[in-house]
Amino acid sequence: MAHSPTPHDKFTFGLWTVGNRGRDPFGDFVRPPLDPVTAVHRLAELGAWGINFHDNDLVPIDATPAERDRIVRDFRHALDSTGMTCPMATTNLFTDPVFKDGAFTSHDPRVRAYALQKTMHAMDLGVELGARTYVFWGGREGAEVDAAKDPVEAIKRFRDAIDFLCEYALDQKYALRFALEAKPNEPRGDIYFPTTASYLALIPTLAHPEMVGVNPEVAHEHMAGLNVFHAVAQAIEAGKLFHIDLNDQKPGRFDQDLRFASESMKPLFFLVKLLEESGYDGPRHFDAHAYRTEDQEGVWDFALGCMRSYLILKEKAQQFCQHAGIQALLAEIRDTGDTGDVGPYTRERANELKAQTVDRAALTRRRLPYERLDQLVIELLLGV
Amino acid sequence: MAHSPTPHDKFTFGLWTVGNRGRDPFGDFVRPPLDPVTAVHRLAELGAWGINFHDNDLVPIDATPAERDRIVRDFRHALDSTGMTCPMATTNLFTDPVFKDGAFTSHDPRVRAYALQKTMHAMDLGVELGARTYVFWGGREGAEVDAAKDPVEAIKRFRDAIDFLCEYALDQKYALRFALEAKPNEPRGDIYFPTTASYLALIPTLAHPEMVGVNPEVAHEHMAGLNVFHAVAQAIEAGKLFHIDLNDQKPGRFDQDLRFASESMKPLFFLVKLLEESGYDGPRHFDAHAYRTEDQEGVWDFALGCMRSYLILKEKAQQFCQHAGIQALLAEIRDTGDTGDVGPYTRERANELKAQTVDRAALTRRRLPYERLDQLVIELLLGV
Amino acid sequence: MAHSPTPHDKFTFGLWTVGNRGRDPFGDFVRPPLDPVTAVHRLAELGAWGINFHDNDLVPIDATPAERDRIVRDFRHALDSTGMTCPMATTNLFTDPVFKDGAFTSHDPRVRAYALQKTMHAMDLGVELGARTYVFWGGREGAEVDAAKDPVEAIKRFRDAIDFLCEYALDQKYALRFALEAKPNEPRGDIYFPTTASYLALIPTLAHPEMVGVNPEVAHEHMAGLNVFHAVAQAIEAGKLFHIDLNDQKPGRFDQDLRFASESMKPLFFLVKLLEESGYDGPRHFDAHAYRTEDQEGVWDFALGCMRSYLILKEKAQQFCQHAGIQALLAEIRDTGDTGDVGPYTRERANELKAQTVDRAALTRRRLPYERLDQLVIELLLGV
Amino acid sequence: MAHSPTPHDKFTFGLWTVGNRGRDPFGDFVRPPLDPVTAVHRLAELGAWGINFHDNDLVPIDATPAERDRIVRDFRHALDSTGMTCPMATTNLFTDPVFKDGAFTSHDPRVRAYALQKTMHAMDLGVELGARTYVFWGGREGAEVDAAKDPVEAIKRFRDAIDFLCEYALDQKYALRFALEAKPNEPRGDIYFPTTASYLALIPTLAHPEMVGVNPEVAHEHMAGLNVFHAVAQAIEAGKLFHIDLNDQKPGRFDQDLRFASESMKPLFFLVKLLEESGYDGPRHFDAHAYRTEDQEGVWDFALGCMRSYLILKEKAQQFCQHAGIQALLAEIRDTGDTGDVGPYTRERANELKAQTVDRAALTRRRLPYERLDQLVIELLLGV
Repeated sequence: MAHSPTPHDKFTFGLWTVGNRGRDPFGDFVRPPLDPVTAVHRLAELGAWGINFHDNDLVPIDATPAERDRIVRDFRHALDSTGMTCPMATTNLFTDPVFKDGAFTSHDPRVRAYALQKTMHAMDLGVELGARTYVFWGGREGAEVDAAKDPVEAIKRFRDAIDFLCEYALDQKYALRFALEAKPNEPRGDIYFPTTASYLALIPTLAHPEMVGVNPEVAHEHMAGLNVFHAVAQAIEAGKLFHIDLNDQKPGRFDQDLRFASESMKPLFFLVKLLEESGYDGPRHFDAHAYRTEDQEGVWDFALGCMRSYLILKEKAQQFCQHAGIQALLAEIRDTGDTGDVGPYTRERANELKAQTVDRAALTRRRLPYERLDQLVIELLLGV
Repeated sequence: MAHSPTPHDKFTFGLWTVGNRGRDPFGDFVRPPLDPVTAVHRLAELGAWGINFHDNDLVPIDATPAERDRIVRDFRHALDSTGMTCPMATTNLFTDPVFKDGAFTSHDPRVRAYALQKTMHAMDLGVELGARTYVFWGGREGAEVDAAKDPVEAIKRFRDAIDFLCEYALDQKYALRFALEAKPNEPRGDIYFPTTASYLALIPTLAHPEMVGVNPEVAHEHMAGLNVFHAVAQAIEAGKLFHIDLNDQKPGRFDQDLRFASESMKPLFFLVKLLEESGYDGPRHFDAHAYRTEDQEGVWDFALGCMRSYLILKEKAQQFCQHAGIQALLAEIRDTGDTGDVGPYTRERANELKAQTVDRAALTRRRLPYERLDQLVIELLLGV
Repeated sequence: MAHSPTPHDKFTFGLWTVGNRGRDPFGDFVRPPLDPVTAVHRLAELGAWGINFHDNDLVPIDATPAERDRIVRDFRHALDSTGMTCPMATTNLFTDPVFKDGAFTSHDPRVRAYALQKTMHAMDLGVELGARTYVFWGGREGAEVDAAKDPVEAIKRFRDAIDFLCEYALDQKYALRFALEAKPNEPRGDIYFPTTASYLALIPTLAHPEMVGVNPEVAHEHMAGLNVFHAVAQAIEAGKLFHIDLNDQKPGRFDQDLRFASESMKPLFFLVKLLEESGYDGPRHFDAHAYRTEDQEGVWDFALGCMRSYLILKEKAQQFCQHAGIQALLAEIRDTGDTGDVGPYTRERANELKAQTVDRAALTRRRLPYERLDQLVIELLLGV
Repeated sequence: MAHSPTPHDKFTFGLWTVGNRGRDPFGDFVRPPLDPVTAVHRLAELGAWGINFHDNDLVPIDATPAERDRIVRDFRHALDSTGMTCPMATTNLFTDPVFKDGAFTSHDPRVRAYALQKTMHAMDLGVELGARTYVFWGGREGAEVDAAKDPVEAIKRFRDAIDFLCEYALDQKYALRFALEAKPNEPRGDIYFPTTASYLALIPTLAHPEMVGVNPEVAHEHMAGLNVFHAVAQAIEAGKLFHIDLNDQKPGRFDQDLRFASESMKPLFFLVKLLEESGYDGPRHFDAHAYRTEDQEGVWDFALGCMRSYLILKEKAQQFCQHAGIQALLAEIRDTGDTGDVGPYTRERANELKAQTVDRAALTRRRLPYERLDQLVIELLLGV
């Protein structure tokens, strides 16, 4: 059947996404807890490839070692029996009150030490279950009160933590890459490293930059009104797209984590096209959740919808490349009749350039039929 | 007189700021052209240190060599006779229709070549007048139609241009540093490198990263709802704060370029405090303009207001450091009673950390009196 | 041909939309002036029904009576020879510097008087050319400096102006209805009556509320991140949708006036569906303009694209009503198995209600398959 | 002591504000439950005048009648013994899962009936404790999926509910006025009646418009980037400011409910000035909560800070009126040298106006020294 997901598509979900129980700042849970084993089975039936988790999505923070072992055994058994993978893991450094003012950037060295401890244990757990990518989302690394915390010091503390954990991974011979995930605000008034680019700027300053990339999230860039297609393009150009969080969001409001492509069809069409054409071969991870109005069955509708919309947009990306009208316009736009680029600097080239006479009006007259092109894209998306 | 600016304060304005004539998308000019020589004299009288320009703020794009020479001679004479400096210059790569789809990122290699030509001439002009910092704001480097332009290619083209121009500066033995200025949108639907962090991420990939830093602008970060204090802190931590554009802006709307600190007293207090305490010794540049309701005299009210507000906030930054209540709270917040940091990774340290028993509830109980601290800051700002 | 506009579709454009010359705050004109007569002919050829104007779109503000008469004669001849209508007119109360601090809300009674004068003349002109709807967009009725203007007084002044002009229309026996158009900001820092609802709240307080309705604009509601479908629904529920401005806009940024449905396919699908199903039979007016990258031919691509997208969404609205899966879900959602509503208040009904035992958990269990429904809508839109 | 609150200032807090336990979408409770009796005593000690509540802030949703009676008796005793008032009450129609898709606008008539039942009981409780204002915040009256709910029908359902409840209040001879509170989004994707103006537009269509006004909330207008001073001014002009929710918020993000005036000193200065000068004599209600980083003692810091900042801004509003420089500028701005207004419409007046010759350039030349005025306001606020 058309647009039916298969493991070949590499779709993954977080345990916390299908397991979201619908609590929000103004309302209580509406759905019962979802057993991780059930999640694995249902996602496998829908055609997903894998499932990811925060340590405490799987193992409660106060579980005994015996409980932990039982849970992990059952979960692994579910993975094995369904063929599902667990390609990514991450640490919950935000739910427990101990992290109320940050984890790696806390003022309190004991909290920072605990955050490292918790992350090392969670890395062990992730690797044990097969994870190759380890995500860091610093949900509490921020401030409401800028008098209280030095943002320069916060950057240094965060760097120290990542450097420490890279060493740990290397020392343990874990085949892990780190992917840093940005968000501008919520739950903190402002979060440090608010955009994907903030992490791209940090990475070259790390002790092991080659191990560390980014995990852009659609909703998080949209919250700041930024163009997520451009943000992911910069990550790809830098060789740093190590993971991606797909969902949707209306700009300029609370973090919605909506079903993929349920709001932003056009931007996400370009994002899917970019992912598919870039050679990115990592998971297509959905970090979203069902509306609070849904019951548990609606969660599976939600999950299927995410995957279907990705596949539909992927198909349209192929159509874009085969669409005669679009390709003709692109050829016209790109064909400037010129012989080529300036090339690298030489003094002669510079002098030559400086001496050129330029007919600005003539250059301006070249047509750029972008309205027509964009309308063809809209009609391609609308299936006309 | 208190809060009266002097050249010692290093305040600078752009010719385009005090020369802004009040045209907007819905209305015509309301103020006559301002002669650059007059601008120099009036700003000098007000206590400014310097004046900056785009090439065409000073020399019209179609000026003859003779006109150029006369204008430059008169301008230099004004600088000399007032003691004003010209510490920064930049290129107008956005007004002329030839740049309607970008300058360095245009599809058309002839436009890209012209943009290099224009920039080299403008660098010559800037250096001739004393500029030590060269700003790049790529106002047209963006898109409304993502089908039309490849954002990965756009990054490469922009990098090529900056690399070329670094070589040019080196070859000319210009003592110039480049400062890249980001903006999320307007006039383009989306501008590439939308935030300061996007440029911080680009710089390490340049051929001459040591020559290139950033020029954060308050309004441009605010447009995306980001915390400009955090953005500038990241630039400082990276050693890349080469220039700064001070103004103001309400978030989530058109680019307002309001008088410094006329909207965002608290965030800009922290920004001023950071600049003053960081050792930044470059210009305090105001990139703003008077309301369209003002006549030319109002422009000087506007300029004076920018400088006064900076000095008032600077004074409050000093008071913050001497405020017993604030300092006592900060000491309490920072004193965790702990002996120190985790330190660099060793296997022993990791094992020790992993084996620690942590009393999360005890750590959580430590007070963080941020409401009280923030209220003291508010009352400091309100002069209570 | 499918989705080809005809006059039957009642599509209209403003002279200022197809005549937009591409100037923006950072760049000069890119397109030559467009002759109104040419605009009429080209729009007629594309299938439009009508053309609207601000007084000075047609007649320059300083035209002599003879010039005015010649322009009007030529324009009327173009209308007559093409069968185009002119259903709406409006006043330009924002371009000229005299209106820099408002028109009807200016502090200066002479400016307020001039604004009335200009509007009466423009109403005469509009009626002469057939207009039945008169739009008021108070682009300069706002403030950057809230110390300077009393917003309560501004409301009273605006009301006085509308009351005066209603009387004028009645006295002249003009068959005109007024439509008030809101915008949150730009060009002013804040504009009074920032949303459609603000005008809906004003109307009942006017002397002639029956003559006055609203002209919601998609982009203006989107600028504030509001749901334009909900805003128009409130106008319809109040019987006050007298006109509509169709275009598109990304939220939280400058006023973009993009081609209809080029960004917000899903919200505008619901808007088109609402318009078509509500019995609204006024013009489908496009208040948008071509990208600045376009030449004049691209303007006609833009105009055709607006109309085609409307017709495509209209067709999809019909498909929605015939879509078995969607309709089945809607039936399930609406069928609560209950016999009816509470009805009007009686003491008995209230007592009965208060005494009822309610099984909250049972009510909560009723399924609301909104994820599935929304995904069907997405797939309908994507033409799957 | 200066800026110390007293009951004379009419400051009120919600039980839910000081009782907020710091849970957010990403984190658990950090503070223990606060006993309502303790809340009354602590607020009284701080100088507050009253305390407000949602029904379930005081009486748990599943309390037995005996529990209810005991709780109410204890609470009333606390009020009596402290002299605290309870001027406002409201209904929690959002926490329980039964309201997941709305209360008064739910598809399910049984949910709508239950919402009426719950509100009548809560009105009884509020009146029993002295409330004179009854607030309606329809936190769940909205949608994520516009296919699922008809916004026109939603308005009618909401109107029916308010009409029913007005009749109930009248029938019970309750001396209650209703105050409707708007919010654009969160927890719903979009909430119906997103702004204060939306409710101002609804009220004239109600059966008992004289009983119903609005309860504007600072944060809720700021979320949409609107000017709350203008919004409250429109409510005052309409005679509909029945209550007000004071807090603070950065625009374009999640609902922050920050300490009053901790972010937006200038807009809230104008708001306080307006309230004080308008004759508004209702409660100054704080609908905010302490940062999640605070412990319970910090909550009282937070509460005191809200009140102090209000009093400081109130004092500055008085200084504004006595500030010679500001008043001189205002006099200059308002003195247009003109003899008066156009006055009501007469045919003669219209003809006279139409025939006037206007010197636009002369009118434009009149100075509007808004930069200077605004700078004086900034310096007044900064205590210079």
